[in-house]
Amino acid sequence: MHSLKNDRYLRALLRQPVDVTPVWMMRQAGRYLPEYKATRAQAGDFMSLCKNAELACEVTLQPLRRYDLDAAILFSDILTIPDAMGLGLYFEQGEGPKFSNPITCMADIQNLPAPDPEQELQYVMNAVRTIRKNLQGEVPLIGFSGSPWTLATYMIEGGSSKAFTKIKKMAFSEPQALHLLLDKLADSVILYLNAQIAAGAQSVMVFDTWGGVLSPRDYQDFSLQYMHKIVDGLTRENEGRKIPVTLFTKNAGMWLESIAATGCDGVGLDWTIDIDNAKARVGDKVALQGNMDPSMLYASPERIEQEVKHILAGFGEGPGHVFNLGHGIHLDVPPENAKVFVDAVHKYSAQYHKG
Amino acid sequence: MHSLKNDRYLRALLRQPVDVTPVWMMRQAGRYLPEYKATRAQAGDFMSLCKNAELACEVTLQPLRRYDLDAAILFSDILTIPDAMGLGLYFEQGEGPKFSNPITCMADIQNLPAPDPEQELQYVMNAVRTIRKNLQGEVPLIGFSGSPWTLATYMIEGGSSKAFTKIKKMAFSEPQALHLLLDKLADSVILYLNAQIAAGAQSVMVFDTWGGVLSPRDYQDFSLQYMHKIVDGLTRENEGRKIPVTLFTKNAGMWLESIAATGCDGVGLDWTIDIDNAKARVGDKVALQGNMDPSMLYASPERIEQEVKHILAGFGEGPGHVFNLGHGIHLDVPPENAKVFVDAVHKYSAQYHKG
Repeated sequence: MHSLKNDRYLRALLRQPVDVTPVWMMRQAGRYLPEYKATRAQAGDFMSLCKNAELACEVTLQPLRRYDLDAAILFSDILTIPDAMGLGLYFEQGEGPKFSNPITCMADIQNLPAPDPEQELQYVMNAVRTIRKNLQGEVPLIGFSGSPWTLATYMIEGGSSKAFTKIKKMAFSEPQALHLLLDKLADSVILYLNAQIAAGAQSVMVFDTWGGVLSPRDYQDFSLQYMHKIVDGLTRENEGRKIPVTLFTKNAGMWLESIAATGCDGVGLDWTIDIDNAKARVGDKVALQGNMDPSMLYASPERIEQEVKHILAGFGEGPGHVFNLGHGIHLDVPPENAKVFVDAVHKYSAQYHKG
Repeated sequence: MHSLKNDRYLRALLRQPVDVTPVWMMRQAGRYLPEYKATRAQAGDFMSLCKNAELACEVTLQPLRRYDLDAAILFSDILTIPDAMGLGLYFEQGEGPKFSNPITCMADIQNLPAPDPEQELQYVMNAVRTIRKNLQGEVPLIGFSGSPWTLATYMIEGGSSKAFTKIKKMAFSEPQALHLLLDKLADSVILYLNAQIAAGAQSVMVFDTWGGVLSPRDYQDFSLQYMHKIVDGLTRENEGRKIPVTLFTKNAGMWLESIAATGCDGVGLDWTIDIDNAKARVGDKVALQGNMDPSMLYASPERIEQEVKHILAGFGEGPGHVFNLGHGIHLDVPPENAKVFVDAVHKYSAQYHKG
């Protein structure tokens, strides 16, 4: 393996000193880039792109050629585990992900297999190995999974949802069935992320896109409890380096203390919380990742720089900040605006790392 | 006018003593009720129902015949003002509201007329007068409007939105245009709500469904500032009684202090915040409305009662609580479950009002 040339991202997550604030973008490989669209067209549909290690590697590396990013993130989907469990993931034109065989009852849950990461999900591990090799130690590679609650929403609703009617019906009327599903998912996520780490992922992230639609108690009970189990079950060191773990729940600004208490290294922030508030509350325990509104990339270069400066000033001095967008980059953002963003983070953050 | 027989709702919003906690449900008149569907079929489309004072009155009163509710709320739409401004509101089957003539530029905004509530919006005032008369003083009537930010999202996006791309583009690249729109909308909302009060509304509520998609500073700047202007501009007394004003922003649990500081009487809570936390932070300034997850109405009677008891215990002793769902009732809720909910609030809250 190549030694790592730029380890800012890993150091910042472990709250170690860095020269400038590291930055990457959620969904940095994606449809806003013309070269991504070209590779995607070559692959055919989205899942064929995910399942082709060479092409998944190619799109993972594309944003690194354009921007001075401090991390690469595996190109894949959050719903690979339910697909490997036999739910039949597919995508309809212009719509979100769907499952042909959604979960409808306890028997469905009892019958769910635990996918072997090096069998049913081997295409993901092959992508990790290929990307890691091709990165040649330039920046670390982030592996990821959806959270058990977030995976369960798609598995039970059969796709995207607005009101989460079916899963909430189960949560409030058959909680033991939902808990069994979430526990099975947590076990599968642990296997999956540990396999990504073994294959070369140098940090992992759990995306809980939909935990924020729950009440505080239900969030603890149905989402955070299972992310905590995952944190406890992960390989935390490999190749002589720590493997930082980041948890991200959208719309969870009120619950940062309990997220930080899981023992994770980093907590993702969306843009609905001031980062100085977040730092004051949990900055002595965890690193913070975030938190610019992705829509700010529609603005002028001056306005983007102003926002970057504001967030950097909010975090202030010292390590423990990974700059990022508060959610995925929008597909109609001009690619040159992403460059303004990434460069501004490096340019204006040096002053906070002199100590 | 009839004297008011049940004024719990008004008293609770003014933090005065009550015998039991008052309760009503957002969207209590609506598609979960078979009698609503029958009246709607009689009216034709949704806006024809809103524009027919007798039928709008009928659906407003329907839930009061089934449940022991402590308030009626005007049956209308939040988008009546933009429609009266000439944007052409329409509804497509199975989709949200749409506008034929969305706002695209500064000139569109400069040309927007200020609707006269007793002209272009007279159908709303006629509904208020008819409902008030037919209520015969049983319970107070709540008037309402969308917030300027929330109205602007529909006016600029042309309908419902997930990422709010167009309005955020305007917010970040042409803020002066958006501010002009929001200021015009605030002026129109003031005229509209004061006309509802003059026509007989005994309390008013501003629904800011989409303020929670903003960063904390952008929320202050683009949403709360204009709700504050509305609070300042409203008639606060009529017929010898105070007219309580409630502000509700979904996903705003972190910003309660600044909402309470507008001088409103009540603050609406969704279900993502514990009511004891909210009370500790702003309960000495404002009443709180909320905050049960509407999806809890899918559960068993026992589970619904358990949740009601939990929220009542969270608020604890004393007035200043209006029980409600944290958002609108879902259209597929069994009507009998709503009865369990309403009755449980009255039954289990008496113990907190003995002082």
